[in-house]
Amino acid sequence: MSVPAPNLYPPFNVVRLSHTCLNVSDLDTSRAFYTDTLGLQVTDEEGDRVYLRAMEERGHHCVILQKSDRPGTVEVMGFKVWDEDDLDRAETYFRERGQPTEWVERPYQGRTLLTRDNIGIPLEFYHKMDRLPPIHQQYALYRGVKPLRIDHFNCFSPDVDASVAFYNDFGFRVSEYTEDEESGHLWAAWMHRKGGVHDMAFTNGRGPRMHHVAFWVPTPLNIIDLLDLMATTGFVKNIERGPGRHGISNAFFLYILDPDGHRIEIYCSDYQTLDPDHEPIKWDLKDPQRQTLWGAAAPKSWFEHGSNFVGQETTEAVLKATPIVAP
Amino acid sequence: MSVPAPNLYPPFNVVRLSHTCLNVSDLDTSRAFYTDTLGLQVTDEEGDRVYLRAMEERGHHCVILQKSDRPGTVEVMGFKVWDEDDLDRAETYFRERGQPTEWVERPYQGRTLLTRDNIGIPLEFYHKMDRLPPIHQQYALYRGVKPLRIDHFNCFSPDVDASVAFYNDFGFRVSEYTEDEESGHLWAAWMHRKGGVHDMAFTNGRGPRMHHVAFWVPTPLNIIDLLDLMATTGFVKNIERGPGRHGISNAFFLYILDPDGHRIEIYCSDYQTLDPDHEPIKWDLKDPQRQTLWGAAAPKSWFEHGSNFVGQETTEAVLKATPIVAP
Amino acid sequence: MSVPAPNLYPPFNVVRLSHTCLNVSDLDTSRAFYTDTLGLQVTDEEGDRVYLRAMEERGHHCVILQKSDRPGTVEVMGFKVWDEDDLDRAETYFRERGQPTEWVERPYQGRTLLTRDNIGIPLEFYHKMDRLPPIHQQYALYRGVKPLRIDHFNCFSPDVDASVAFYNDFGFRVSEYTEDEESGHLWAAWMHRKGGVHDMAFTNGRGPRMHHVAFWVPTPLNIIDLLDLMATTGFVKNIERGPGRHGISNAFFLYILDPDGHRIEIYCSDYQTLDPDHEPIKWDLKDPQRQTLWGAAAPKSWFEHGSNFVGQETTEAVLKATPIVAP
Amino acid sequence: MSVPAPNLYPPFNVVRLSHTCLNVSDLDTSRAFYTDTLGLQVTDEEGDRVYLRAMEERGHHCVILQKSDRPGTVEVMGFKVWDEDDLDRAETYFRERGQPTEWVERPYQGRTLLTRDNIGIPLEFYHKMDRLPPIHQQYALYRGVKPLRIDHFNCFSPDVDASVAFYNDFGFRVSEYTEDEESGHLWAAWMHRKGGVHDMAFTNGRGPRMHHVAFWVPTPLNIIDLLDLMATTGFVKNIERGPGRHGISNAFFLYILDPDGHRIEIYCSDYQTLDPDHEPIKWDLKDPQRQTLWGAAAPKSWFEHGSNFVGQETTEAVLKATPIVAP
Repeated sequence: MSVPAPNLYPPFNVVRLSHTCLNVSDLDTSRAFYTDTLGLQVTDEEGDRVYLRAMEERGHHCVILQKSDRPGTVEVMGFKVWDEDDLDRAETYFRERGQPTEWVERPYQGRTLLTRDNIGIPLEFYHKMDRLPPIHQQYALYRGVKPLRIDHFNCFSPDVDASVAFYNDFGFRVSEYTEDEESGHLWAAWMHRKGGVHDMAFTNGRGPRMHHVAFWVPTPLNIIDLLDLMATTGFVKNIERGPGRHGISNAFFLYILDPDGHRIEIYCSDYQTLDPDHEPIKWDLKDPQRQTLWGAAAPKSWFEHGSNFVGQETTEAVLKATPIVAP
Repeated sequence: MSVPAPNLYPPFNVVRLSHTCLNVSDLDTSRAFYTDTLGLQVTDEEGDRVYLRAMEERGHHCVILQKSDRPGTVEVMGFKVWDEDDLDRAETYFRERGQPTEWVERPYQGRTLLTRDNIGIPLEFYHKMDRLPPIHQQYALYRGVKPLRIDHFNCFSPDVDASVAFYNDFGFRVSEYTEDEESGHLWAAWMHRKGGVHDMAFTNGRGPRMHHVAFWVPTPLNIIDLLDLMATTGFVKNIERGPGRHGISNAFFLYILDPDGHRIEIYCSDYQTLDPDHEPIKWDLKDPQRQTLWGAAAPKSWFEHGSNFVGQETTEAVLKATPIVAP
Repeated sequence: MSVPAPNLYPPFNVVRLSHTCLNVSDLDTSRAFYTDTLGLQVTDEEGDRVYLRAMEERGHHCVILQKSDRPGTVEVMGFKVWDEDDLDRAETYFRERGQPTEWVERPYQGRTLLTRDNIGIPLEFYHKMDRLPPIHQQYALYRGVKPLRIDHFNCFSPDVDASVAFYNDFGFRVSEYTEDEESGHLWAAWMHRKGGVHDMAFTNGRGPRMHHVAFWVPTPLNIIDLLDLMATTGFVKNIERGPGRHGISNAFFLYILDPDGHRIEIYCSDYQTLDPDHEPIKWDLKDPQRQTLWGAAAPKSWFEHGSNFVGQETTEAVLKATPIVAP
Repeated sequence: MSVPAPNLYPPFNVVRLSHTCLNVSDLDTSRAFYTDTLGLQVTDEEGDRVYLRAMEERGHHCVILQKSDRPGTVEVMGFKVWDEDDLDRAETYFRERGQPTEWVERPYQGRTLLTRDNIGIPLEFYHKMDRLPPIHQQYALYRGVKPLRIDHFNCFSPDVDASVAFYNDFGFRVSEYTEDEESGHLWAAWMHRKGGVHDMAFTNGRGPRMHHVAFWVPTPLNIIDLLDLMATTGFVKNIERGPGRHGISNAFFLYILDPDGHRIEIYCSDYQTLDPDHEPIKWDLKDPQRQTLWGAAAPKSWFEHGSNFVGQETTEAVLKATPIVAP
């Protein structure tokens, strides 16, 4: 079997993905894009950073935009854990596996553990984040694509088998995966903690690099609204792929690029994967309906472009299979 | 505080609500309603029972229709637990609290514990249920309201404070609640295991009785489609309340009655409540936007009509506050 | 037969309804409502008037808000004609039927004929109105309910038979009508020029008064967005009836009241009635699915409340039938 | 100016496009596609023909499928006129311009004039067609993409300037057009009678050939439903282009191919063009947002593939400009 049996009793409890810090070249430009075009809400801004949250979120931030001289890179991917003891258990876990660990100060967050996964993705774990009042019923605030919450991360990994094994060990469960029939290796895998299709996914390619970060919206019509808005406010070149219905996940999707080239997916309508005996769905790399159920191939940029992690070297993928690429 | 602090380390792990068995007078009539009008899929039928699942579900059944000489009653509400040991822990837990417990044989289910909660709602817990192939991408099968999964139960309780305390003890967490300011008692509460607004909710009233069982659908337009279909296929009288946007839960909803008077809610667009530090939202019983954000009051039947549980006496509610009722 | 045979060769060519001038008490309050809440665009403002258009319109205005010491009244209902000669033909037509006619100066409009119909509704006809650049693809401007165009007027008439006969004579064609079976008289009728269900409709009641003016929107989801917005920005009391699917017209609708009590309908999804041999659909006054296909009765206010026309006395309805009214 | 001034007083009154007769290889296969996949309703079937109508139509047919040894060709495009005299006026009009005219017998149609336009497209005009009871509120009948009515034809023309001039002369009005800036000639034009963006459009290319016939649906979500259905019922190869938002017309669209390669467009949300002084919108052939507002180029097949008209030779296009084609 290509994917390991799930670890139903993980060493520490990751609740869900939480946030990411994206490095940008111009804070005003990015701030405008994430608020006016996407519809996130600014919760705080100080110095080089703008903190934002989505419309149903109570945690202080799901995106931090940071002005940097390395725009287009990602600082970290953040995850929330169940309690303070989970942080200590996580620290032990990563340290025992030879990963660097460090306790760091993060504004608006309590105790935070910074570490890296097996391919070098910088991860931070926390239990407490400042909580904000609900705004999900402040309908006058909704704009853009009406983003409700951060949904998942997707990263390029030079060895998806290894990435899946690493995350599986601390409780991430595979919901869907693509296998390269010829080699028997994983091309991609979707793994979750929170009971949807994924919190973290891996796609074969030079890595580690962030492939995209995704936000959940109410309906496909919100995605159409975003396309109409972007196409007529100067962002037609930022539309990369879609809209469409995924084969994998069955979600309705759109991929766009932010002003610094960070890829963002707008996503809705996947399905519930809570059950401990939930069976992963396998796809063959050659299946033309895998990425878009309606058959449209992704553009070459979708397979190649990504955001480096700060201070992290990348490695070419082990697997050299060729997916179907739009000409 | 009106609601107890959540129990973040429950004695056994309930994953989610799973299924209910509804007693009906005519199996053909009910089968047609649940398939042609609602859009559930029959997975098996034998003798007096029809088993159905919703479109993204892999478990064998979310609804069992059972021909009975006590139509309009409910046999049981089913919940899935994380592992087999949870069943034993649950058995001990309920037995120690004076609730009857019994191991029962259920078709298509593994070991199943039958018990009752503090007000007499019959509950069954299982770990294994037959698993079926995914059909969520068999788009030719979708019809009716395109129901994706069972979402929650809502029961009348004569003592909501007591019901909330009981479920809180084994890990159900309150996401929203209505307090009667005058008495300080709970009028209603919404409690979850799976990370949405609720798996189980309680509404003050003569009980125990089932108030409704709910199904999740992709978008509000699916609810409009169901209304159009019901209104023109002889089911206009089965439309009870809605459509509308709830104040509590922020979900878009519709309430209908099945041929035997079981109330069904069609529901979408609530929000994620995974965080252990997720704060419950409190509503006042006098708030006219509580039930329908848009202001429409529920009809009297909505406060009064429910389905009895088989073999279970009901008691009048302790709390006699008066909600706002449509004239 | 209750409705007259259509006049397929009318004496002058009315293209469509065009605009209305609504008297309001506070121009700022109304301006904010029509722009921020509804989503119309201000095209000009001067002195006591604000001119607005909807998103796909090229004509200068579909609504004029006029500050007045008689707020809640309507100045006039405007219609566009095919050419300048039609104005002269119209003038002759109304004058020959004993209606007052007058050439008036209207800002942003060319030659305009002011007259009254048989029950006293003030009508103005024009051929030329200032034309504005298209904004239908300026998606950054869309807000509120995203109104695309003015769709129809509906007026209380004390004698619907007479109103229908009057408008039928100059080419308005009945698409649907409600007959009071007992008396054989018309309770209501929907009449069009532009090929949809109506440009002008009449409802039995004390009149003449405007019952409502309606705007067309892209989808029912836009109507749900408006309800969410109004309910959470202080306008819950302005939501009068709906949302729902009409029996008559099959359109998805919502009725709201503007700050001065003018009733506005938000409307979409009716059907094409272009054919000269298009057969009107007849409904019985006792049919509970007539107004809302889903069965919900309209509130009493819907049958009683309306906007008077400036300087026009009203008369009680001839027909005293009783429709089904929500309790 | 590229487009002629509209003829506001045409020699005969064409109400709207009405129907087309498409030649197919296998009647059962096509019948299934048009009913189960698209959602049209069969009104009659006899011998080699199946007659279908869409859900709000009262006329007997909008599509005739005809078994033929020349599948993939089109027999005729039909239009409805205002009265019987219009047929005689049309006969004179076409005959005086050197076009062949013939009175033909058509089942379910009254007197019918068969002729050809200037490039050889076979046209038939009628006044009477059998009328059927309304089914627009028989919601149990809706399936597939829920098509409401036929919306327009689009044909390849080897000389769009000439086609536009020809149709303009009998009252078709240009709503939008694409000009090749280099040559000053028209690349394409959209012309209407019924007050929407078009009844008939012309696209530069070898012709005459039908480019596509289009059906109007309620919302973009219906188009997404059709894509999901087609993709999972063996029709993924029949999805040619889209979904997307057009620059021209602003409509939300999808192009698919029927089992014989006839191209069908599914279309909604364009705008009203009734006004005699409605100004056509001009696009440049080099504008990448012309076809899809969101920027996606059409595939090569979209520019090249079409359905021949029976017994009609085709000619290469005069204009050799190169549009933007997806690689």
